[in-house]
Amino acid sequence: MINFENMDQAQLVNTLAELTEKYKEYAAMGLALDMSRGKPGGGQLCTSDPMLDVLRSDSDMNTENGFDARNYGLFDGIPECKRLFADILETTPDNVIVLGNSSLSIMFDFVSQCMTHGAGGEPWISQGKIKFACPVPGYDRHFSILEYFGIEMVNVPMNSGGPDMDMLEELVKDPSVKGMICVPKYSNPTGITFSDDAVRRIAAMKPAAKDFRIIWDNAYVLHDLGEESDRLLEILSECEKNGSGDMVFEVASSSKMTYPGAGVAALASSKNNLDFIRKRLFVQTIGHDKVNQLRHARFFGGIDGLKAHMKLQAEHLAPRFQIVFDKLRESFGENGIASWFEPRGGYFVNLEVPENCAKRAISLCKAAGVTLTGVGAAFPYGKDPGDSNIRIAPTYPKTDELSAAMDVLCLCVKIAYIEKNSKQKLLP
Amino acid sequence: MINFENMDQAQLVNTLAELTEKYKEYAAMGLALDMSRGKPGGGQLCTSDPMLDVLRSDSDMNTENGFDARNYGLFDGIPECKRLFADILETTPDNVIVLGNSSLSIMFDFVSQCMTHGAGGEPWISQGKIKFACPVPGYDRHFSILEYFGIEMVNVPMNSGGPDMDMLEELVKDPSVKGMICVPKYSNPTGITFSDDAVRRIAAMKPAAKDFRIIWDNAYVLHDLGEESDRLLEILSECEKNGSGDMVFEVASSSKMTYPGAGVAALASSKNNLDFIRKRLFVQTIGHDKVNQLRHARFFGGIDGLKAHMKLQAEHLAPRFQIVFDKLRESFGENGIASWFEPRGGYFVNLEVPENCAKRAISLCKAAGVTLTGVGAAFPYGKDPGDSNIRIAPTYPKTDELSAAMDVLCLCVKIAYIEKNSKQKLLP
Repeated sequence: MINFENMDQAQLVNTLAELTEKYKEYAAMGLALDMSRGKPGGGQLCTSDPMLDVLRSDSDMNTENGFDARNYGLFDGIPECKRLFADILETTPDNVIVLGNSSLSIMFDFVSQCMTHGAGGEPWISQGKIKFACPVPGYDRHFSILEYFGIEMVNVPMNSGGPDMDMLEELVKDPSVKGMICVPKYSNPTGITFSDDAVRRIAAMKPAAKDFRIIWDNAYVLHDLGEESDRLLEILSECEKNGSGDMVFEVASSSKMTYPGAGVAALASSKNNLDFIRKRLFVQTIGHDKVNQLRHARFFGGIDGLKAHMKLQAEHLAPRFQIVFDKLRESFGENGIASWFEPRGGYFVNLEVPENCAKRAISLCKAAGVTLTGVGAAFPYGKDPGDSNIRIAPTYPKTDELSAAMDVLCLCVKIAYIEKNSKQKLLP
Repeated sequence: MINFENMDQAQLVNTLAELTEKYKEYAAMGLALDMSRGKPGGGQLCTSDPMLDVLRSDSDMNTENGFDARNYGLFDGIPECKRLFADILETTPDNVIVLGNSSLSIMFDFVSQCMTHGAGGEPWISQGKIKFACPVPGYDRHFSILEYFGIEMVNVPMNSGGPDMDMLEELVKDPSVKGMICVPKYSNPTGITFSDDAVRRIAAMKPAAKDFRIIWDNAYVLHDLGEESDRLLEILSECEKNGSGDMVFEVASSSKMTYPGAGVAALASSKNNLDFIRKRLFVQTIGHDKVNQLRHARFFGGIDGLKAHMKLQAEHLAPRFQIVFDKLRESFGENGIASWFEPRGGYFVNLEVPENCAKRAISLCKAAGVTLTGVGAAFPYGKDPGDSNIRIAPTYPKTDELSAAMDVLCLCVKIAYIEKNSKQKLLP
């Protein structure tokens, strides 16, 4: 491994020339590789295909409480699916509402609800400038929702055990801070799981805003890569211990358990909040897709069946993460250029490169046919303050493609680093 | 048939005593019959069960443009489903977005969008008191949406060819009137289809509000009962002739084509509006349930397959409507007490009874085990100005149950009428 840090200018320039030659070889290969989104790969999707055989024309279509899943009704979900999500989220079915196929839509709609009808107080839209605390780097689509509704986002750095709690606790003293949005387990993109201490401190917060809400996107709740897995403290009961269960608005979905294009999503919250949400939901729909809810409930049979299914998913995911770890160790293990965290689950690896190098590396990758998540995507307003963050999404490509893509990425990071330190540029 | 209108007080009292005896017989039967909602019956749902066999574990899951329907993406719908809904709505696929399972949710979300982000102008929520024109009687769930968002509803009576156009044209001169919401074909609950003249006059309106929107809920677009069917002029092209395509926000769904609990819904609008909606949709979801979209598209094969399928549905519906017509003719054909319209499609029969009789009749029915749609449900704020409207939903009960329920209903209307005219009451 080359140690870039001790190189003098001449060595840097020589190395840049060598790396540029390699880069040109890749660029000439006509690659079209995509590490931009946390999408399951084709083989991984196939593990869920037997679900399509669960409900057929001659199946019993009644839910366990005797409703015909094909017809109108049961607007807050079928009981077997509520129980499944309650088990997933380690809560009780009466804290759960099961909805359509997208937890993103649920979060969007919740923010929309708070804007026009409030969260137990005045509508947010009538309260002037309001803000959300956003652990960063975070999930770009969360930030898009907040931006769409004109909610100002305040960055809170992610530490190794979750968001910077001192900063967060300070922030919520501002009554215009109405909430936070986060992925608490195998966080997108850092892969970090909030520590027990962080969860307890979050649950113990007494925000100045009485209508403060935590959007707890538990997207990777059961998405372990191997036997060793992270453990996240259950937020709702922690908040309830502090008498603030109403702060929690948790979501999860089966998008990355079965099909991203045809899953089932759910929310969990306090009784108060659910009552408020049900009033809206009753106006909003006569019911979500209960046939798909029934299909999921019968396919898994229960939480044990689901956990077994997640192991099949991990068989597809683990080797891909291993490739990413191996390539990163190989390229950056000792030269200190880049740092990363090796998560035990989730869908991403977060790569920190030297300041002002991320944009250049991503752009070099793009020119060589390797697509990464857009520059700054993991930050509110797309602004990565250090221009140093690269989100790697290893799940979608085939393994050989992923290897090639990682080679290109590592190469481009090195080039960007040397360009910056040598003030030389050999590539457009 | 008894002619009530010529009866003197003694005759009325005698007749009331006879009818009361009959009523008590029904009440003793322990009936539990439901004519309250426009739900398909069990047998009718079974006609769509072969759809469950269309996609199996070994099926090709690619859309016609080569996307894996199981994965993320195609947030505005798969092309084969856009084409299907374009054919249903007699427009072109580029005017169509295909979404989740509920057209009600689409309308709710559209109003929500207009509230916070406007309809080409200022957000509705920042424009003070705003109003919607509501043809009445109409669909209760439409009114619930408007009420939820605090939009004032103004009744516009339905005539035989659609809404009172003179009144509507006058109303839209008020800039605070931001839209109208209606079911233009086989209207819920009147069964009336807007005439060509009405559609043309609607399309030619030049509302004072530049951000006026017509929510055109084409729920029964292909829902004919027999060979003879109504023809509705296509609204989007009519509006475009007048340069006001942006006024149209049309929805439809397969809820009453396949399963109410697992259908596919779509919207059609102008390019301008679709662009605006897509910006929101992109933030809202990574995609709706494309597997269900594909299931529907393959099951029908195209518009001809869908039309053939609708004939199977009609086989279940037509006899039920016939029972309602027969019972109404038998009971009220010549005595002038009640009037109704016999639609050629849709899901309802609208019964007009004498003033101040509907509430009493519905309540008598309820006490005898026959549930009808709630009093005043077909009017904004649940207020039927004449207390004279009863919505009959004949689709869900079995035919013998429907016969019994209609007998009870006709009896209760007669009792309510005589009670009113004789000032006598023999029942609680």
